Amino acid sequence: MAVIELLKEKKADFFVLQSGGVNFSYATKFKSSSTMFYLIGVDGTDLLLLPEMELGRALRESRVKEIASFEKLGYEEKLKELKSPRKAIAEILVERLKEGRAKKVLIPTDFPAFLAFELQKHFEVEAVENPFLKLRAVKRADEIEKIRQNCLILLRSFDKLYRKLRSKKPMNCDSARSFLEKELFFQGLIAEDTICSSGKLSADPHELGKGKIEDHLLVDVFPRNLRTGYYADFTRTILIRKNPEIEEMLKAVIEAKKKAISMLKEGVNGKDVHNAVKDCLKSHGFETKAGEGFIHSTGHGVGLEVHEEPRIGDVDAELKSGMVVTVEPGLYYRKIGGVRVEDLILIRKNDCEVLTPYESFLALYNP
Amino acid sequence: MAVIELLKEKKADFFVLQSGGVNFSYATKFKSSSTMFYLIGVDGTDLLLLPEMELGRALRESRVKEIASFEKLGYEEKLKELKSPRKAIAEILVERLKEGRAKKVLIPTDFPAFLAFELQKHFEVEAVENPFLKLRAVKRADEIEKIRQNCLILLRSFDKLYRKLRSKKPMNCDSARSFLEKELFFQGLIAEDTICSSGKLSADPHELGKGKIEDHLLVDVFPRNLRTGYYADFTRTILIRKNPEIEEMLKAVIEAKKKAISMLKEGVNGKDVHNAVKDCLKSHGFETKAGEGFIHSTGHGVGLEVHEEPRIGDVDAELKSGMVVTVEPGLYYRKIGGVRVEDLILIRKNDCEVLTPYESFLALYNP
Repeated sequence: MAVIELLKEKKADFFVLQSGGVNFSYATKFKSSSTMFYLIGVDGTDLLLLPEMELGRALRESRVKEIASFEKLGYEEKLKELKSPRKAIAEILVERLKEGRAKKVLIPTDFPAFLAFELQKHFEVEAVENPFLKLRAVKRADEIEKIRQNCLILLRSFDKLYRKLRSKKPMNCDSARSFLEKELFFQGLIAEDTICSSGKLSADPHELGKGKIEDHLLVDVFPRNLRTGYYADFTRTILIRKNPEIEEMLKAVIEAKKKAISMLKEGVNGKDVHNAVKDCLKSHGFETKAGEGFIHSTGHGVGLEVHEEPRIGDVDAELKSGMVVTVEPGLYYRKIGGVRVEDLILIRKNDCEVLTPYESFLALYNP
Repeated sequence: MAVIELLKEKKADFFVLQSGGVNFSYATKFKSSSTMFYLIGVDGTDLLLLPEMELGRALRESRVKEIASFEKLGYEEKLKELKSPRKAIAEILVERLKEGRAKKVLIPTDFPAFLAFELQKHFEVEAVENPFLKLRAVKRADEIEKIRQNCLILLRSFDKLYRKLRSKKPMNCDSARSFLEKELFFQGLIAEDTICSSGKLSADPHELGKGKIEDHLLVDVFPRNLRTGYYADFTRTILIRKNPEIEEMLKAVIEAKKKAISMLKEGVNGKDVHNAVKDCLKSHGFETKAGEGFIHSTGHGVGLEVHEEPRIGDVDAELKSGMVVTVEPGLYYRKIGGVRVEDLILIRKNDCEVLTPYESFLALYNP
C-alpha cells in the first residue's frame, strides 16, 4: 500500500488523516459530518476514531479494520477537565499515537494547524503531500465508468441548450445557466457556479456572467453526480453573432486543444503539453502578458473533486493510464472578452480517449 | 472590528485566512476555487492575495481594500526556483508579512499545517478559534430573512411529503427522500444526504435510511439555498403504524424540545439548555448509556454552514440575540430504532422565534 511505503521512506510511524474532505471518505469508505480520524501505522495499524453516535453506521459501512469511539477512549472525562472539545480530541489522538510507540508522524499538508501544533509537542511531525491525492488521480474502471456516465448526461443537457439557442428562443446568461442546471438536475447531476458569460466580462475566466448574451456565450459547467459523488467538466464557446476577433480566438484555442489531445498518453509530462498549448496559441499570434492572453494552466484531474491531481501546467507531472484530466485552453483580452474550450480526457497506455466528444466550433451563423 | 481587537489582545500583528471555506467568502465578499489569502493587520492592513486570473473579478466584487496578485509579487520566478506552487506561495506570504514587520501571526485552528509550519520558521504563530466563526454566529437582518425564506420553502415541501404519506401512496425511504429533495430543488434549495430512515436502522442518528418504511419515518433535511448559500435544518418523526414504544419516545422528545424552546433567549447558557433536555428525557424514563438514549448534543448554529457556532451541548455557550440555532432532541435504542424532532430557532432579546412552525406530533393513525 502506497501509504505504508511512504511511511517507510520517511522513517515515520503513523499517517493521520482528519475527516472533512473526499480523501477521508475515499480512504475509509465512510462519510459523516462528524470530526473523525483515520490512522495508518507502519506496523499495520488501520484505525478509525469517531464519536460514538457514528459507531454503528461505521461498523456497517467502513472498510477500516479497527474502529474506536472517542467516548470509549475517555472523551467525556477529558472534556470536563479541558473544557474544549478540540483539546479533548487532541489528547485522545496523542494518547493513541503514544500507545502505538509513535516517534514521527506524517500529516497531509492541509491538516488543521491547531492539531498539528498539538502533535508537535509530542512527536516529530512532517506535513506531506497527501498520498491519497496520488492514489485518487489514477481511476479504477468503476470510477471511469461513473465519470463517463456523467459526461453523457452533460453532453445531452448541453446539446439541449445549444439547440434552444439555435432555435432563437430569447435567452440571457442567467436563463441559459438556469436551463442547463435544471436539465442536469433532472438526470441526477448538481451543477453550481456554472459559467454562462458573454461580452467583455468573459475576459475574467471565472466570471459567472449575467445579463444579455452579446456576440458569444462561454459555457463552462462542472456538475457532480448526487449519487456517486464524481464530477465531470466541460466548456464550449458558442458564437452567436459574427465577430471576427472572437472567431479567430476560438479557432486558435480549438487548434491548441487538438494539439494537446494528440500528445496525451501514459508517460507524457503535463508540463510539455502545457508548453505546446502556449506555443500553439503564440503561433496563432496571441500573446500572453499583463493578465491577458492564455492566463491559466492547461488542465487538471477530475474525480471526487472538480480540481484534483494531476495539474497540467508549469510544473512537471507524469501522466499515467487511468488518469482523467481536462484540456482547456483559453484566451482572454479585456477589450474583447474571453473564449475557452474544454474536453474531459481519459489517459491510456498509447493514446487517450475524449470523454466529451462534441463539436468544438459552434456558431449560430454560417461562418 | 473584532479581528483587530483579537490581534491587540494576543499582541499579534496579522491574522491570515486561506480561501476554501465560507469564512473566507464571508470576510472578503469574494468566492473562487483558487488558492487565495486574506491578511488583516493590527496596523490597518486589509489585503487580498490571489492569482492574476482572479484580479479583475476581485476588484469588482470583493470588499477588501488592497488586492495584489501572486504574479505581481514574483510567483513565476519563485516557481521556477522552488518547483512547487505551494512553496512559491508560502514564500510570497512570508515576504508580505515581513514587509508588514510581523513578529507574531495568528491563524485559524483549521489553517493548513504545511503553511503553518512555513510561517513558524519566520514568526511566532498561534492557532486561534477563527474570529469570523463568532461573527457569523450572530446573524444580520438580511441573513435572518434568507434563512426564514428557506424555512418557508422547507415546510411547504415537507408538508407535501407528509400529505403524500397520509394519502397512503406507496412510498419507501428512498422514494420519500427523492420526492422531498426534488420539491426543494424546484424552489431553489439543494438538499443532500437527507435522512429518511425507519425501523432499527434509525437507531444510528446519521443513517440515511433505505428500503421499506416500517412503523415510523424519521425525516431530517438540511437544504442550502443555491442563490444565497444559507442553510435551513428541520426534522420530524412521522408515526406510520401504532408502535407504543416509538410513540412514547416521540412524546418525550417533543416535551424536551418544548422545554428547551421555553428557555431560549439572549444571555442563556446553551449548556443549561442541553442539561434541561437531558433531565426532561430522563424524567420520562429514558436513560442514556452505552451508545443508546440521547447520544448527541441539543443543537448548533445554522447559516452559511449547516453546523456552525454556537454549539448547544456539554460546553458553555452564551446565546445572543440574532443567533439561529437548532433544537433537536432525539432518542435511539438498538432494539427499537430512533426518533428525533428538530426546529430552527431565532434567539431574541427576551424570547425566541420558531422559524419552522409545524406540528411536532405527526401520526397517520388516530393516536
